[in-house]
Amino acid sequence: MSQYDTRNLSMMMDLYEMTMANGYFSSKIADTRVVFDAFYRRNPDGGGFAIFAGLEQIIDYVTNLHFDESDLAYFRSLQIFSEDFLTYLKDYHFRGDVYAFREGTVMYPYEPIITVVAPLIDAQLIETALLAQFNHQSLIATKARRIVRSAKGRGVADFGARRAHNMDAAVYGARAAYIGGAASTATVLAGKEFDIPVTGTMAHSWVMFFKDEVTAFREYAKAYPHNCQFLIDTYDVMRQGLPHAIAVAKEVLEPMGERLKGVRIDSGDLAYLSKKIRKVLDAEGLEDCKIIASNSLDEYTITSILEQGGTFDAFGVGERLITAKSDPVFGGVYKLAAVEEDGVFKPRIKLSEAAEKITNPGRKAVYRIFNEEGHAFADLIADIGEQIDLSKPFRYVDPNKPWKIRCFENCTAKPLQLQVVKDGQRTLEPASLKEIQDYVKMQLSTEIWEEEQRFENPHKHFVDMTPDYYAAKMDLLHDSQNNQ
Amino acid sequence: MSQYDTRNLSMMMDLYEMTMANGYFSSKIADTRVVFDAFYRRNPDGGGFAIFAGLEQIIDYVTNLHFDESDLAYFRSLQIFSEDFLTYLKDYHFRGDVYAFREGTVMYPYEPIITVVAPLIDAQLIETALLAQFNHQSLIATKARRIVRSAKGRGVADFGARRAHNMDAAVYGARAAYIGGAASTATVLAGKEFDIPVTGTMAHSWVMFFKDEVTAFREYAKAYPHNCQFLIDTYDVMRQGLPHAIAVAKEVLEPMGERLKGVRIDSGDLAYLSKKIRKVLDAEGLEDCKIIASNSLDEYTITSILEQGGTFDAFGVGERLITAKSDPVFGGVYKLAAVEEDGVFKPRIKLSEAAEKITNPGRKAVYRIFNEEGHAFADLIADIGEQIDLSKPFRYVDPNKPWKIRCFENCTAKPLQLQVVKDGQRTLEPASLKEIQDYVKMQLSTEIWEEEQRFENPHKHFVDMTPDYYAAKMDLLHDSQNNQ
Repeated sequence: MSQYDTRNLSMMMDLYEMTMANGYFSSKIADTRVVFDAFYRRNPDGGGFAIFAGLEQIIDYVTNLHFDESDLAYFRSLQIFSEDFLTYLKDYHFRGDVYAFREGTVMYPYEPIITVVAPLIDAQLIETALLAQFNHQSLIATKARRIVRSAKGRGVADFGARRAHNMDAAVYGARAAYIGGAASTATVLAGKEFDIPVTGTMAHSWVMFFKDEVTAFREYAKAYPHNCQFLIDTYDVMRQGLPHAIAVAKEVLEPMGERLKGVRIDSGDLAYLSKKIRKVLDAEGLEDCKIIASNSLDEYTITSILEQGGTFDAFGVGERLITAKSDPVFGGVYKLAAVEEDGVFKPRIKLSEAAEKITNPGRKAVYRIFNEEGHAFADLIADIGEQIDLSKPFRYVDPNKPWKIRCFENCTAKPLQLQVVKDGQRTLEPASLKEIQDYVKMQLSTEIWEEEQRFENPHKHFVDMTPDYYAAKMDLLHDSQNNQ
Repeated sequence: MSQYDTRNLSMMMDLYEMTMANGYFSSKIADTRVVFDAFYRRNPDGGGFAIFAGLEQIIDYVTNLHFDESDLAYFRSLQIFSEDFLTYLKDYHFRGDVYAFREGTVMYPYEPIITVVAPLIDAQLIETALLAQFNHQSLIATKARRIVRSAKGRGVADFGARRAHNMDAAVYGARAAYIGGAASTATVLAGKEFDIPVTGTMAHSWVMFFKDEVTAFREYAKAYPHNCQFLIDTYDVMRQGLPHAIAVAKEVLEPMGERLKGVRIDSGDLAYLSKKIRKVLDAEGLEDCKIIASNSLDEYTITSILEQGGTFDAFGVGERLITAKSDPVFGGVYKLAAVEEDGVFKPRIKLSEAAEKITNPGRKAVYRIFNEEGHAFADLIADIGEQIDLSKPFRYVDPNKPWKIRCFENCTAKPLQLQVVKDGQRTLEPASLKEIQDYVKMQLSTEIWEEEQRFENPHKHFVDMTPDYYAAKMDLLHDSQNNQ
């Protein structure tokens, strides 16, 4: 568990989870084993995929779930729950199994990313907190990956805390941004908690405090000669900020044997200014001084700045990363997929009024199918009991074109879910954040096709089904319409 | 302090606050008294105003600020801070004064909403956490107010937790939504913490668990006869969900002397379905059964649904409220406004490359100017030392049209900031959340012009200046360009 976050988050639920739980309890069906899947339906920003993040916190939450006296007193005050049920909650802890993709895995819509196999009441109570963590961190990791891609190798630092949707969004957002490829964060609490490199130098207030800008720079250079970066846009970049920075570099830093590490601009026409700054710095012998941009950046503005020949070495990205401004809702859902009847999991399906809200029923396995070059050719959904033998051509169904007859040939299959919680206890060894970031990088550099990674009209990854699984789903769809 | 939130959030800062603080400390200027203002520059969604929220949490944060051993150990590990400074931090607590608008006040761009008058180091360290709380809660309160307005008197419930940007965004978002006028929340933790009414009945999983929909409804009706609402879109609203709901109302509820309280739909063409549902319910003698909508609602979709004659009685609003999806960044900033020199606060100004980033210098007072009818005619920024005597015509300057000669006549002025923290101790009596919500309602019904409240092209509230304050700002602007 985190030092920062020792809150009891068991009450982080929608009231209906508790009304349903009370109903299950009084109907004596609370212990029936069920299967729930967490999945999502649409990649943010029209992208080709998303990045799964938040698993470590989900495991912490599930394995620490309990209700304290004040929680029970609150439930009692609502006057809708039976006293038997409240007594039951007193010693309640999560008893189920959780299976999930490894954190950092590239994921696609409609795949079961997290599967909970548990007594009905256990599976129901964790819905909201599990989704909030899954949705938030996956959203920010996916957004960060896009911004990092747009920077084409230049460093991206998370500067977003002040515009985050409160404290957790800053801390876990910084974590997720790092998973997505950010090099560092400005948020100290995130640096402390997750061992993320922290960065930061000065704000406008430093410059404004002193009687003039050159004094402000001089004082900063004396305090931080080894890592001296100046914010040069407080008054006028080209007439004041840049000349003052250069003067202090020569007057204070160079006599100490130090170099000016960087200048940052936070306003104005960034591409235009960067080119002018670069020219002046180079002419003054400061070729090694980096230029850093901030100010409402995202993958779109960074792409545009670089297309215009902007000469930045790094980007500080704030509000548009930490809120995923262009598409701030990651719509992950958590749906019942099966109910145990006479020792067997019987599939359940939701039809809904909207085709995209139809669920994939049953207890499933998901495989990533690799071709001979090691590229992720497709994903495959199967019933959990099916044998997937790719040593010979293996027929699959594209659910969008079920009439097509296609086979995987010369492919290998890797199961994507692993067990992370068994009978309420963590079974997954915790991964370091750096390992998760490295895993994302590895997938993007070797497994995931470039065609899926581009921003414009990316290739749509195939999430196929085995013929048996597809047929079973179709049968269930027909039954549900006729028999309800 | 909250029961839920006993975290030490002192590390919720950008690293540059600490590097600057260390610099101030080593330059022996850390105790110089300064003035910082928190303000914002643009109303979300093109609205006419915003609602100030988050003050209670800001006071809690500021008055509890401290660094524990693990914080100091982390700072030490970064190897950029002096040991003297770390020793100083050990017993550090916030020593300043904080002035702020009352929570729930209607606010406008460029006004100082929160003013911190404190030793430089104190004022600097609280920047990030103060802004994150101010930005997040003001964003959601403002968004909620828009959604509530669009519902034209129908209840709006917050259903957003699962799509919130992590736990705090759900809990403090529910708080802010209530301030903005939401009637209730589904988030249990928020209900418990802030005494917000909680609502919730069943999810699709309840319906899917049972062997058929009618059984699911029957079981629910038995468990909750007094407050029975059914979710009727799991399979087919008109052919299955609605007839099953009506059957169970007659078969289970009516013999118990109970009525069906409501039906909810979460998919499909909401306006169309609601009209068909209303007709059927009425024909069956269920005129008192309410119809509730959910599914990606916001002020735009609710307005459209009602324009089409949708017959909903209440709305459950989730992801687009809790993330403020249409405009998810509230860009509040925190800027140095004055520095004490020889016992007098000398104003500071930031010019920047962008006109909208120029700050209002000095220690200021803000007044709301009311006309004889009690309407908020304008706001007025003055130097803190100025006497504002409205017993006779009072000249003001509109900074966008400074050549105009205008006077307030027959007006009264109400100061908007009050002291909430003195020498690091809370001085403001905590307000209940209901009081804050009522205060918002009062302002919108009696003080704020309807012309400022409409969504389309709202009237722009005047934030004027006294002639002396305006002249002093202009002088400082000129000086800053010539003397830097």
